[in-house]
Amino acid sequence: MEKIKIKDRVLTGDRPTGRLHLGHYLGSLKNRVKLQDEYQTFVLIADIQALTDYYDRTEIISKSVFELMKDYLAVGIDLNKTTICLQSMLPAIHELTVLYMNMVTLAQIQRNPTVKEELKNKAFKQSPPLGFVCYPVSQAADITAFGARFVPVGEDQLPIIELAREVVKRFNRLYKNSPLIEPTAILGEAKRLPGIDGQAKMSKSLNNAIYLSDSQQELKEKIKKMYTDPNRIHANVPGKVSGNPVFIYHNAFNSDKAEVKDLKTRYQTGKVSDTEVKEKLFKAMDNFLAPIREKRQSYDGQEKELLEILIAGTKKADEITKQTLNSVKESMGLVRW
Amino acid sequence: MEKIKIKDRVLTGDRPTGRLHLGHYLGSLKNRVKLQDEYQTFVLIADIQALTDYYDRTEIISKSVFELMKDYLAVGIDLNKTTICLQSMLPAIHELTVLYMNMVTLAQIQRNPTVKEELKNKAFKQSPPLGFVCYPVSQAADITAFGARFVPVGEDQLPIIELAREVVKRFNRLYKNSPLIEPTAILGEAKRLPGIDGQAKMSKSLNNAIYLSDSQQELKEKIKKMYTDPNRIHANVPGKVSGNPVFIYHNAFNSDKAEVKDLKTRYQTGKVSDTEVKEKLFKAMDNFLAPIREKRQSYDGQEKELLEILIAGTKKADEITKQTLNSVKESMGLVRW
Repeated sequence: MEKIKIKDRVLTGDRPTGRLHLGHYLGSLKNRVKLQDEYQTFVLIADIQALTDYYDRTEIISKSVFELMKDYLAVGIDLNKTTICLQSMLPAIHELTVLYMNMVTLAQIQRNPTVKEELKNKAFKQSPPLGFVCYPVSQAADITAFGARFVPVGEDQLPIIELAREVVKRFNRLYKNSPLIEPTAILGEAKRLPGIDGQAKMSKSLNNAIYLSDSQQELKEKIKKMYTDPNRIHANVPGKVSGNPVFIYHNAFNSDKAEVKDLKTRYQTGKVSDTEVKEKLFKAMDNFLAPIREKRQSYDGQEKELLEILIAGTKKADEITKQTLNSVKESMGLVRW
Repeated sequence: MEKIKIKDRVLTGDRPTGRLHLGHYLGSLKNRVKLQDEYQTFVLIADIQALTDYYDRTEIISKSVFELMKDYLAVGIDLNKTTICLQSMLPAIHELTVLYMNMVTLAQIQRNPTVKEELKNKAFKQSPPLGFVCYPVSQAADITAFGARFVPVGEDQLPIIELAREVVKRFNRLYKNSPLIEPTAILGEAKRLPGIDGQAKMSKSLNNAIYLSDSQQELKEKIKKMYTDPNRIHANVPGKVSGNPVFIYHNAFNSDKAEVKDLKTRYQTGKVSDTEVKEKLFKAMDNFLAPIREKRQSYDGQEKELLEILIAGTKKADEITKQTLNSVKESMGLVRW
């Protein structure tokens, strides 16, 4: 008799505040496409958490739900392996959030390194909304509601996973027969893709991103504007390859490694023009993006079909998260029926 | 053609952390029994809010749910007029809580007079749990989920209602077609019943309370121990009536006003023993409490019946609160189905 091993669960997700770019792809999406072969994967579209920043621009949130779905499906998220679901339609997550709020003190949140860093960057006018203060608890609810054993995150998010672990530890000490699993972070590729302006991070707000949904023309223009070595004012001046956005992108997206090697050598010795380097990068990136773009476009105007996919995924997620909630309430000994 | 006026709704409730005492009766229950004739009344058993203090003693919470129900029914809460429901089984309230958390800043909570006062009294070891920090938002969710126009509260709770009004105002400014109603506080009788030890407040934690569920014997013993005028060491010493617990109780519970007047006169002139004053108080209070006690006892061992009442009330409340949530989400423009 063979023993069937139930696959461990992985939870990932995004706030629906815009389309996804190549930074998201390298930092997260690429990894998700791999993980879905090994794990039972859930992708949570976190519209409730998006409200923290976008409560006064909800039209962006609702539009972005479908933009995200197109991005997921375009890069190879496979609906036979991955469940895509919507946070606001999963009431069990909100109930768990409210229950976990007794497991965490205000001071614990305020000394969390990720929260501190984000508070600095966000510069709330006076005082952060409670939605922001409580978002790490909401994430602990997301993760544990799905019984996710693994959570792929960037290094900057490790303290948030640590907080989720603390919530689970405290809960499991307090209540016997708790169903909660301590989640473990999976760190993605450490490399971060710089913006086309050379800034360390590709981001929508910095307006320096290349999107999965960019047209060929947009891609061409963005690569044309891309920063290179600022000291190299002529094609015959030897240039720096390390830290140079154009070569970071070649490394990441040009599958012709010989070509990349040749370009680097010629660049460092002043034997290639920026134009040639960029044209070759455009060709390589267009090769990479064309099938994604094509697949993505096939969903244009298919919002009804996308909604059906989302409803089906959320229904499955609803059952799983409600099961967790029921076990949680049972272990707490609350009155229920 | 006559126009049928839909009754305004009133929301009241208690945290299930113990049985109710005469302080609760005078401060709140008595008023509820009156209000249910004029308004569509909901009584919310706030077990989720009870977790803020009792998360490590949940057996007290689940037991107290039924103790509260017995107290309600014993004093005259009429199931034909009032709906009794359980907070933890109303998911729409938790979702509204999470949504409203973006309408309130941490500073707004921290400068709320009620929160400040409670923080002082509770003396959390280091830092308050987020469950405490967010409880005013949770109360705003309770009130608005039911579309309650009126909320009977004590004066100390006015700033919490004010916060709920601020949440509603902010929400209604942000989102068109919001269904939310600004609630109005109804102040109960200002008089507060002192403890039997003469302390300003009757409370479980001070161990100075007379419960609706006390037996005749317990009542007798508590009245025997009740503080009077400490300067009156003999029956023939003139005593003070004002501020004297025994006479505050006579005023509140002895319906024979002539007897009370006579006792006061004789007390002030040193012509009555403490024993007589207390014996008459016992008789009066026993007259008041006997039918309550009897009705309450009729529910002993009827937990199954009580549970059925609670399930039916919560089902009704579930429908109303879910309607509110749906309208709230629709006005926000979130993706839903």
